[in-house]
Amino acid sequence: MTDRNRLIYLPLGGAGEIGMNCYVYGYGPAGKERLIVVDLGVAFPDMDGQPGVDVILPDIAWLNERRDRIDAIFITHAHEDHVGAVGHLWGRLRAPVYARRFTAIHAMRKLEEAGHSTEQVRVAPVWPEAVKAGPFTVQFAPVSHSIPEASALVIDTPEGRVVHSGDFKIDRDPVVGEPFDPELWGQIGADGVLAYICDSTNVFNRHEGRSESQLPEPIGALIAGAKGMVVATTFASNIARLKTLADAAVANGRSVCLMGRAMKRMVSAGEESGVLTGFPRTLSPEEALDVPRENLMLIVTGSQGERRAASAALSRGSYLGHELQEGDMFLFSSKTIPGNEVGVARIKNALAEKGVDVIDDSHGFYHVSGHANRPDLEAMHDILRPRILLPNHGEYRHLREHAKLGLEKGMTGIVAANGSLVELSGNAPRIVEYIDVSKTYLDGTAFVGALDGVIRERMKLALNGLVAVALIVDEDDVLLEDSWVQLRGLPETAGNGADLAEMIEDELASAMPRFDAKTVMDDDRLEEAVRRIVRTLCLTEIGKRPEVAVLISRLMAA
Amino acid sequence: MTDRNRLIYLPLGGAGEIGMNCYVYGYGPAGKERLIVVDLGVAFPDMDGQPGVDVILPDIAWLNERRDRIDAIFITHAHEDHVGAVGHLWGRLRAPVYARRFTAIHAMRKLEEAGHSTEQVRVAPVWPEAVKAGPFTVQFAPVSHSIPEASALVIDTPEGRVVHSGDFKIDRDPVVGEPFDPELWGQIGADGVLAYICDSTNVFNRHEGRSESQLPEPIGALIAGAKGMVVATTFASNIARLKTLADAAVANGRSVCLMGRAMKRMVSAGEESGVLTGFPRTLSPEEALDVPRENLMLIVTGSQGERRAASAALSRGSYLGHELQEGDMFLFSSKTIPGNEVGVARIKNALAEKGVDVIDDSHGFYHVSGHANRPDLEAMHDILRPRILLPNHGEYRHLREHAKLGLEKGMTGIVAANGSLVELSGNAPRIVEYIDVSKTYLDGTAFVGALDGVIRERMKLALNGLVAVALIVDEDDVLLEDSWVQLRGLPETAGNGADLAEMIEDELASAMPRFDAKTVMDDDRLEEAVRRIVRTLCLTEIGKRPEVAVLISRLMAA
Repeated sequence: MTDRNRLIYLPLGGAGEIGMNCYVYGYGPAGKERLIVVDLGVAFPDMDGQPGVDVILPDIAWLNERRDRIDAIFITHAHEDHVGAVGHLWGRLRAPVYARRFTAIHAMRKLEEAGHSTEQVRVAPVWPEAVKAGPFTVQFAPVSHSIPEASALVIDTPEGRVVHSGDFKIDRDPVVGEPFDPELWGQIGADGVLAYICDSTNVFNRHEGRSESQLPEPIGALIAGAKGMVVATTFASNIARLKTLADAAVANGRSVCLMGRAMKRMVSAGEESGVLTGFPRTLSPEEALDVPRENLMLIVTGSQGERRAASAALSRGSYLGHELQEGDMFLFSSKTIPGNEVGVARIKNALAEKGVDVIDDSHGFYHVSGHANRPDLEAMHDILRPRILLPNHGEYRHLREHAKLGLEKGMTGIVAANGSLVELSGNAPRIVEYIDVSKTYLDGTAFVGALDGVIRERMKLALNGLVAVALIVDEDDVLLEDSWVQLRGLPETAGNGADLAEMIEDELASAMPRFDAKTVMDDDRLEEAVRRIVRTLCLTEIGKRPEVAVLISRLMAA
Repeated sequence: MTDRNRLIYLPLGGAGEIGMNCYVYGYGPAGKERLIVVDLGVAFPDMDGQPGVDVILPDIAWLNERRDRIDAIFITHAHEDHVGAVGHLWGRLRAPVYARRFTAIHAMRKLEEAGHSTEQVRVAPVWPEAVKAGPFTVQFAPVSHSIPEASALVIDTPEGRVVHSGDFKIDRDPVVGEPFDPELWGQIGADGVLAYICDSTNVFNRHEGRSESQLPEPIGALIAGAKGMVVATTFASNIARLKTLADAAVANGRSVCLMGRAMKRMVSAGEESGVLTGFPRTLSPEEALDVPRENLMLIVTGSQGERRAASAALSRGSYLGHELQEGDMFLFSSKTIPGNEVGVARIKNALAEKGVDVIDDSHGFYHVSGHANRPDLEAMHDILRPRILLPNHGEYRHLREHAKLGLEKGMTGIVAANGSLVELSGNAPRIVEYIDVSKTYLDGTAFVGALDGVIRERMKLALNGLVAVALIVDEDDVLLEDSWVQLRGLPETAGNGADLAEMIEDELASAMPRFDAKTVMDDDRLEEAVRRIVRTLCLTEIGKRPEVAVLISRLMAA
């Protein structure tokens, strides 16, 4: 390591996956850089990979070891995959958190819930005002996205200007919030941009991006044609969409009722921060019970099939006194995030069983994406003309495709997945180090490393079932013939109809007397011998090799 | 029940879901109908709903109780969701199995693997020849689908003609197999159709269906432009696609190598049955090692992201000596079945990490569906003009949409999900009875009912983890203070860093001396008391309520 100053970029989450964004920038001598963190997001677990886990957090071990060098944390916008980990991880970083007002409201609530002071959150001014953080000067530049006050960060460093796109799209009429401003972006790029760290989620989509303002007309027409109750679901944080839906309801003589905690929280944060004005008066679910169904529209949470959300509850039966029936309409003004298809289909089918007409965006009328498609990405490349293009926020294939696009356009495109430490300064920007980066699971209240094996063990239980065996070695070091067996997640009877647990006990009773003293005296050997007998028997009887827990009670002479 | 003869239809699988097709037709006095079975398919489990299960089978309890009345089993085509359960369930039905030659080869292999005689499978003749089965006369009418020799069944009954569509599309040039023949279908419909039981999977797709013959050109152009090795994946059973892919390879100077057991089995069944001719000579994976990569094309299994298939193996590293590298191309000539998105994305990303260009069908050039879209469904309705339309093979929302379509066109559209016994004869065809129909899981070699709780117990283990506790009640009915605790799928340490298993043992040691004799003497009470202590402690220490297995060893006086 030399004392030469360098400018570095290190993704800890969000590069090589969609969700869980967390990026680090540093400037200073190698190993002594002052650091800033951009976004502290979460990802959501699924049964396939993280059963029982509450939320997935970035692995911030690297940052934690350097926390005395962190000058600030910046949050680009209030989506959970950008702000969701602030409450869980702030205690290990303890740097001031900067965000625009709407985002700050969410960050403060998260800190509060985690027992930290909300004073650590500072409401950041918008471009051209700036926040100083160590060697960095950071400006929040408004971008359009599917949530208010989303921002890119313009990060000025001694080595030049770095632009961190955040999640964005180009929307000249986003219904709520600031429209895309080509003049502002022209200014930002005017004096040269060293590196553009850019959202990649939609790089494979070659269509022009569509504006939020294209939705009120088709949504209005849809509601105008509805006979019974109308229910619509979308992401609660998409306040522009909530407004479009609510306005369309009112225009068609319907009262609006919001259902779901997140929905109400987002609208009130929108009003509190001033980004949302003119939202129609809403009824409480109770008040809404008095409104004839043809004059009512519910706007509900649960567009991704979440089992506990209002959508799912309505699909199963009545919710807060409201029940859907034949002739009602249910609109998914949303896209289904990959992985959620089965849950969403479950709700659609349950609604269909009630005779409800389910409308979704499969024909492209009732939803627009919040991310820039390929032509819009190219438009931004052309405005900023960065020397280096660093695709972020995307699976590996998105990063690779985006970097290729950059190379074709004469930029230095670098694919830097989580853990790739990139030096941006110097003549040849490149990955200079790979940091071991895993993920952290919040499991109940415990932090569990993704590679700790705890969750893998749970998945094995789910796949194979469990046989628990209790054995007793008495005061004279004699292994008793009796064992006590319990099955979990296995059929009670074998193919011939015999009780499987009893068969295992019998098999052990006949095998254990032959164990030698070395086996009986050693827990590991004894466990292994018993495990082998249980597995062999189960493979014969039920065709499975279960997990086996052997509990050995060694009695002590009194 | 009267002695009046009636004609009934009963779906046992495939109506209210995609996959696991199994339908029953009956004719005779109520409760004494002679029966035929159409299809015996499987569905595939996932971690979300059926962890560790090998395959999902229809619940044939109703049929099993009436097996003396079953005259025949008909299989429409060789997809697993139509033929996959023949081996597992034939032993409980024991009726002759009719199928066309290509399908029969697969049915025979399945019977053989299950230890039954292949003589139970009879190769059925094609329309206009017929099979007599009790009161039914059944003709196999060729339809286009994504597998050779797919058939509709034209079932003549004393009450009139019933047409069971099977899976189909309208393709006038299917590359392999019989093209759609409007004249034949005109004849089938000429004398009136009582009921049309019709594939519903693509009812929401309003586009014209596309022909398999539209693929050779774009696929050829794609391969012509490839520089390195080309790998393509599709369903092994889509023999027309295999031929399109292989022909395109040869036309571009590439040798073809098939990888994956299913791939080779399907091509040989195609050749054996005579439906596939002129397939290019293929190399073994070993021979292919001597071919320069720019002259080679691998056609591999695993289009759905299956972890054990050739695609996944190639994405992870080398497979049978072949390894992909920068500049190679991987084509998904397939669609991703809902639920498989995450597995497919995993493979695409792993390939992208190797620098492989991944091409899929997101722009609609390299795959066509095997199912009829809405316009093609309507075309068949118009040709057959059935009195009753019974949508099958679809989730509930598909069935409902399809039935609505039928109603709009003047047919009696009936939504009959699994277990709905429909009387087709009489003036008012309708559902007359609901049969309790579940699903059967093949778990290892055991059949487990979906409602038995076995799999639900495994899912609870995955979500909550397990604490196993061994207790001893001695010869004098005294509960020993020592307990032995083992954790599975839980963090080893509590929040304060203490060993969680030891904490539980200590907690039990201090609580158990206070248990009253009634608790100690009763296994259920004792288990419950221990479970409550363990759960309360775990909730405090790690924020989770684990599953608890309590093994009580009661020592007997010698």
